[in-house]
Parts: sequence; C-alpha cells; structure tokens
Amino acid sequence: MLEDYVKAMRPEDEELAAGIKDAREALNACQMKIKEAGLPVMVIFEGWGAAGKGSVLGKVIRNIDPRFFKVKTYAAPTEEEKRYPFLYRYIKDIPEKGKFTFYDTYWMEEITDARMDGSMSDAEYEERIDSINRTERTLVDNGYLVMKFFFHIGKKEQKKRLDELLADKDTKWRVDKSDLYENKHYDESLKVYDNYLKDTNSPTAPWYIIDAKDKKFAELQVLEFLNSGIDTALKNKDLAVPILQNTYKLKKTPKLKEIELKGKTLTEEEYDQRLDELQKELRQLHYKLYRKKIPVIIAYEGWDAAGKGGNIKRITGALDPRGFEVLPIASPEPHEKARHFLWRFWTRLPKTGHIAIFDRTWYGRVMVERIEGFCSENDWQRAYNEINEFEKELSDWGAVVIKFWVQIDKRTQLKRFKERQATPEKQWKITDEDWRNREKWNQYEGAIDEMIQKTSTEFAPWYILESVDKKYARIKALEIVIDRIKKACD
Amino acid sequence: MLEDYVKAMRPEDEELAAGIKDAREALNACQMKIKEAGLPVMVIFEGWGAAGKGSVLGKVIRNIDPRFFKVKTYAAPTEEEKRYPFLYRYIKDIPEKGKFTFYDTYWMEEITDARMDGSMSDAEYEERIDSINRTERTLVDNGYLVMKFFFHIGKKEQKKRLDELLADKDTKWRVDKSDLYENKHYDESLKVYDNYLKDTNSPTAPWYIIDAKDKKFAELQVLEFLNSGIDTALKNKDLAVPILQNTYKLKKTPKLKEIELKGKTLTEEEYDQRLDELQKELRQLHYKLYRKKIPVIIAYEGWDAAGKGGNIKRITGALDPRGFEVLPIASPEPHEKARHFLWRFWTRLPKTGHIAIFDRTWYGRVMVERIEGFCSENDWQRAYNEINEFEKELSDWGAVVIKFWVQIDKRTQLKRFKERQATPEKQWKITDEDWRNREKWNQYEGAIDEMIQKTSTEFAPWYILESVDKKYARIKALEIVIDRIKKACD
Repeated sequence: MLEDYVKAMRPEDEELAAGIKDAREALNACQMKIKEAGLPVMVIFEGWGAAGKGSVLGKVIRNIDPRFFKVKTYAAPTEEEKRYPFLYRYIKDIPEKGKFTFYDTYWMEEITDARMDGSMSDAEYEERIDSINRTERTLVDNGYLVMKFFFHIGKKEQKKRLDELLADKDTKWRVDKSDLYENKHYDESLKVYDNYLKDTNSPTAPWYIIDAKDKKFAELQVLEFLNSGIDTALKNKDLAVPILQNTYKLKKTPKLKEIELKGKTLTEEEYDQRLDELQKELRQLHYKLYRKKIPVIIAYEGWDAAGKGGNIKRITGALDPRGFEVLPIASPEPHEKARHFLWRFWTRLPKTGHIAIFDRTWYGRVMVERIEGFCSENDWQRAYNEINEFEKELSDWGAVVIKFWVQIDKRTQLKRFKERQATPEKQWKITDEDWRNREKWNQYEGAIDEMIQKTSTEFAPWYILESVDKKYARIKALEIVIDRIKKACD
Repeated sequence: MLEDYVKAMRPEDEELAAGIKDAREALNACQMKIKEAGLPVMVIFEGWGAAGKGSVLGKVIRNIDPRFFKVKTYAAPTEEEKRYPFLYRYIKDIPEKGKFTFYDTYWMEEITDARMDGSMSDAEYEERIDSINRTERTLVDNGYLVMKFFFHIGKKEQKKRLDELLADKDTKWRVDKSDLYENKHYDESLKVYDNYLKDTNSPTAPWYIIDAKDKKFAELQVLEFLNSGIDTALKNKDLAVPILQNTYKLKKTPKLKEIELKGKTLTEEEYDQRLDELQKELRQLHYKLYRKKIPVIIAYEGWDAAGKGGNIKRITGALDPRGFEVLPIASPEPHEKARHFLWRFWTRLPKTGHIAIFDRTWYGRVMVERIEGFCSENDWQRAYNEINEFEKELSDWGAVVIKFWVQIDKRTQLKRFKERQATPEKQWKITDEDWRNREKWNQYEGAIDEMIQKTSTEFAPWYILESVDKKYARIKALEIVIDRIKKACD
C-alpha cells in the first residue's frame, strides 16, 4: 500500500484554506449527529516518526467539544501491562456510544517495532494479525466506526524534520532512538509497515494513507476522510450485519433434557473426604500456576438456584486470596452499556498467574439479552462467533478457559426457591425476577441448548455440572479445574 | 504499641473452635446488614512477613458472598504508578457502599520499607503521616469503616516460619529478600513499625494488634474485632460528624457582587494579538513541564453560559494533544455515587508532566449538591475542609492547582440563554435544568461566596475570570496559567 502509493493532489493555497475551513465546520456539525445516533468512533493515527501526527491531531480535536472525545497515547508496555493480553490496554480505551477516542498510535506500532527488532516471529505475527482483524471486525459489527490513518513521508523529508527537532533543546527530547533507527533503516521499515497495512486493510476498517509532507494538506485529508467516514457510518447505522459462520471445531454436546441427573450423588462421607483431598491439591496447583504465570478464567452459568455460589465457594476455599477474584456479573451499568458488550469482561480479565471466576458471564448476550430483547436478533445471532473469537483470544494468550453450566431440573428449582423464601437469611437471594425467569424455562432451555452447541470449542469447552446433589457438582467442578490446570502447568 | 503489647489470652482449644464458629456465623450474618445500610468497609492486613496474613484473610472472606468484597494486593509501585500521588492506587480501590475491600498490605508497607532502607527523610515521613491521617479521617467521616490489623509475631517464630517456607520448593518463592532482611533486623523493624502504628492510630481508625503465633487464634481475633467494628459502625451510621475548623491560611476574597465586570473588555485586535502570543508561550511551556514532570490541574467553575467551554478551548488550543485531557464532569454515575465524593476526581488525576482540565469539579459538593439537597448539611459543611485537604494533597505531590471562577451577571446569562435557543447548533447546550438553576441565582450566589471564601488557600487559590467580554476572560486565563506554570518550572 505504501510502496505503490500515488500521492494525492495538493490544492492551491487558497483552495486548501477554504477546504480546511469547510471540513472543520463539517466535523463540528457532525459531533451532535454522532451523539444523537450513539455512534462510537475510533480514530487511529499511525505513521512515520516526525510525520506530524500530533500536530494534525491537535487541530482535529479543536473542532470537537471536550465532552465528546478522549485522546489516548501508549508507550512501550510496562511489565504490569505485559501481564494482560496484547489488546487489553487498547480495548480498555474504546469510546462510549456517541463519543470519539483518538489513538495516537495504537497496536500497530507495538507490532511493527517488534518486527523491526526481530523479536516477533512470523507465526506470532500471523496470530496477531488474525486477532487484530477479528477485533476490528467485531467492533465494526457492533456499531463502531474505525478510521485508520497512516501518515506518510519520504526518507529525506523525515531526516530533515528529525534534524530540525534535534537542533532545538526544547524539541530535542521528542526524537527518540526508534525515530533515528527508523530513518536509518527507512526501506526496511517501509516494508514492515507496508505488510502490516496490507494485512490489516479490510473493507469495514480500511487504512487511509495521508500524504503528510505538507501539514495543512495533511489536516485537510484527515478531516475529509473522517467526515466522509462518519457520514457513511451514520447512513449505515441500522443495516444488519452479516452473520459469520463458525470456523472453529465444535465438540458434540448433549441437549439439557438429555442430561441424566439421577444417581449423580455423593454421600456426606465421600464428599468430605474428596473435598479435602481436592482442595489440598488445588491449593498446591494455585502456587504452581502463579509461578508459571498462567492465567485462569472460570465461567459459571446455570439456572437460578442451581448452586453456583456454593460451588464457587468450594473452589475459592482452596485458593490464596491474593491470587484470585470472584466477579459477580449483574446487569451492565450505564457506562458499560454504552460500549461493546464484551468490554466489561475485557476490563475484568485476570493478570497472568491469577484466577478470575465469573459468576455469570458474557453468555448473558445469548440468554437474557436474547430472550428479554435487550439486543437485536442480529446482535445475538452474531454473538456466538464473537464469543468464540473472544475465547480464542484468551486461549491464544495462554489462559485456561473453563466454562461450567450448572444444571438442575425444574422441580428442583421450585423446591429451592421455596426453601429460600422460607429462610430469612436467604430471602435476599430470591427475587421476583427469578420467578419471572422461571416462567420462561422453556424459552431459556432452547437458548441454552443453542448456546452450548455453538460455543463448545476445543479451546473453551463447556462442562455440565449435575447439581441436583450440590455435593456431586462441587466435587466434579474441582476435579475439572484441577485437571485443566495440571495440563496447562505441564 | 508493639513494644508494650500485652499478649492476648488464647482460649482452650474447644472454646477457641466454638468461638471461631460463632464469629464466622456472625460475620456471615453481618454482610446483609452492611449491604442494607450501605456501609463501605475497608479492612487492612499489615504485619510481619510470614505472620500468616494471607491465610487468615483467606478464611475471613469465606464467610462473605463474593458479590460483596474485593481483595487487593500491592507490589512495589511501578514507574507508571510513581507518576501519580502516593495514595492514588490505594484510593482507586476503596469499596462501594455496602461492600468490603480487603487490603493485603496497603500504604503502610510502602512507607515502612522506605524508612527501613533510609530512602524517606523525617520530613517526608511527617508529611506522609499527616496525609494518611487526613485521608483515613475523611473516609471515616464520609461513612467508611476502616479496620486496621497488624499481625505480630516474635523474631524466633518468624525465623522458624521463613526457614520452613524456604525448605519447600513450592513455597520458597513466597519468601522475598525483604522478609529475610526484616528478620535479620527485627529490632530496627519493630521500632519503625511501632512508630508508624503510633503515628497513625486514631480514635476513628484505630489499629488492632493481632497475636499471630497461633493461626486459629489469629483468625478468631480478627473476626471478633471485625464483627464488633461493624456493629459499632452500623449503630453510629447516622451520627453527625464534627465539622473541623479550617487550618490553612486563607486569602481575602471579594464577594461575587463586588466584582467589577464593566470595562473588562478587549478589542478584536488586542485579543487576536495577545491570544497568538500567549498560546505560543504556553505551547513552549507545555513541553517544559512535560520534561520536568510537573502535573497541572486546572479547575473550571462558573455560571451556566459564562463561557467555560470557549475559555478551555483557548487553553487547549495551545497544547500538545498527547499531554492534556479535558474532563467534563456531569452528575455521578451509580458506581461513583456509591463511593466517597472525591473518588471520581482522584481516579481522574493526571500523571506527572500532564495537564488535566476539569470542566466543573469537586466543588459540586458545596454548590449543586448543597442546594439541591443531594447530600446532608453535615456533609457539605464538612466538605470545605475536605476539599482543602484534597488540594493540599495535590499541591504536596507537586501539582500546580489553578481554580477559575468564570463570572458573569444575571442579565448577561439571560442574553446568552436566549441566543443559544435561537441558534440551532447551540440548542443542545441549553436545557430546562439551566433555566431552573437560573431561578435559584441568589441561593447559588450565597453558596459560591461561601465556597470561594472558605477554599481560597495559598496552595490552591481561586481566580475570578470576568467574562461578560469572553475575550477578556480568555486572555486573563491564559496569563494566569502561564504565570503559574512558569513559577512551577523555575
């Protein structure tokens, strides 16, 4: 893309000035439309060192009310940041509906730097590219506008600018080693950039190469692309999005009705003994995975009153409190609802060596949100694949992903609801909503069957915990957790 | 406190077991009361290395539903964390109303470590202690329960435990150098800890020394102190809190009515020329303060339609977008309302070298919250001092704190409201709420006069921007910002 880039035609001064004035006003007028339409806009500035990204960015944001945008910049990742998935710190900063995030360099730079210094293999690079393409597509599919600009200047022009910056003590610090290296190895860098741009250029999130030799002209190009991008996105806002076919290998799974619950019981003695043994084993494994820096994600879903809470407690009872977190998931708060539905899970991921236990999860999308109509059919239909991709991301990062469905039958649920109501300390656990959900048992059952079928991947399989006898379910959960962690530690 | 600590009496085994059982049940029963009362609880575990903090903590949290607590641990601060005020990372983690945060070591360790290795002077230490006492008091005054436990063991016992841990390859990594150092220099450490405990032992957030030689007994002590602390806090929930007298030197300030607005104007030519000069100067200064790592906090308050937005734009127009953030403050979101009123500002502080511009601020507490009755009289009466202390904290950290009151008269406001309503692109800026606030002009005026008078400290003074002519106000703001930053850079 860079190698065969044909320079844009710079207008004459007067025309240029008039064009900028118009484009600035157009962007200014856009911001209210964006707000009303609830369109979240990600604008990415990448490019050569000293190409003038910062100065054009400064001019672009002047046309937008500070209520509607954030500017985010990223240095090389810190040791702490390296303990999260590669995309974590960028996804944390995605805009809310109706707002802009301007990324003054994002994940591209981290990758191209690593390619240049040879620290990223071809295989790793391929994996990253896949992950980025998935991520950008899923953002766009969920209503994000992603505008990517690459600021392009030639070798000589870059050299001239770096020399100028270096000559003044107030600007000298703005030139870092990598800029000088980049200029010295301009052709190699060009190749690396060009590959990245090609590899991540998609019809829904395309790259725009900005001819950045002239600053005013660069501003005009960015403004015009941005305005036209916004225009298109606003027009397309209500279009349905293609539902991608699953591309991961799926396991064969039973329907809920086919799951045998009878006979899955343990005596008190069996339970006490196994619990003690397994908790001891898990305690040791916890230290091991901490040392090996393996992140573990345990997702709990199940019928109301199936015994999720008590099950989780038997896991956490074995763990060092400094190394795990239980994350109870309620309905999203306003600032969460205003972002991609996976955002509130991305931002709750454990760091390497830690365990995160989600009490209810991202599967709300294809259960409660589907059944209560909190999202469109197009949204939840797409979500199976989006979720598989999300879990692939976690698994590629090195995480152990364990998903539990805690299963009981309808009669058992009724018995437990009544018990809860009769026990003062447990009354808070039962709400009108639980009764309402119960009335929709059959609808939920269908949704759950579909969910388990469509998201039982090799890297993030579902495990059924038969929980009419809670003791049985607890021991089974512990055994599975131990087994998975053991395999990951080896 | 440690030196003259008299050991608690360990009960006989049977009594101990029964006591633990009762205390666990009592804590379990507490959690719903805490939730209903909206009591936020901070529980702090400090103590000697290998004293068993983690293991007791693990047992304590087993009695609490995961929905109601978080466990937070802290390593030595990273380079990134060092760019924020000392308390920042701890305050970020304070609990919401009705929930617990367990701190497995908090700010004490950071300070005592620095005292031990000699990197913190007496003067710095005094400043830290003052700041901690202020912070803990203000948390308690705002409804937090702060329970602080110190796990105490003798030198020999510690040696024995460290040796045991070192002997096993699965536990070896849990012993770090500082533990060994601590044991070797037990008496010195004791002195440092003892001083810290004495210096931060206050009637509202006292220390509890836990005799940690016997693990079960340690658990019992923690549970009983915790239960009794919660009990007391629940009983005292609605007590009014003493309103502390201001202890900082205050500047003499005019009442709003006395501020001369007439004649504070500039011609277009004067304005254009000064604006250009000042923005150029500020642009250079921005780089300078970035290099010197000075954080700048600019707080804007003012009447609706006084011209805050345009004023801010003239500041940001001169700045590199990578080094500042404008933070528009609307009414708090649910998760913000559930915490101390200053929390949402703490978490938005700039890092060193950056500028944060707040469009409306923490002064909402003594304006809109006071007038609309969103907090109690006791709350806003206390807030003047709490705000002065907060700004003292920022100033001690090295921040330049600039507070602008943008002043217009009532007639000018009416004129601007009408203009906004008549201009389609500006209609979104004027809401029914603006009109309702206008009706309360006199009430607001009284509150603002009191606010300016009580919070005009030397370290965080108010500046009045006469803004009937917006050009005048903009130039004045730029001059003040430049002047303050210049002084800070020298």
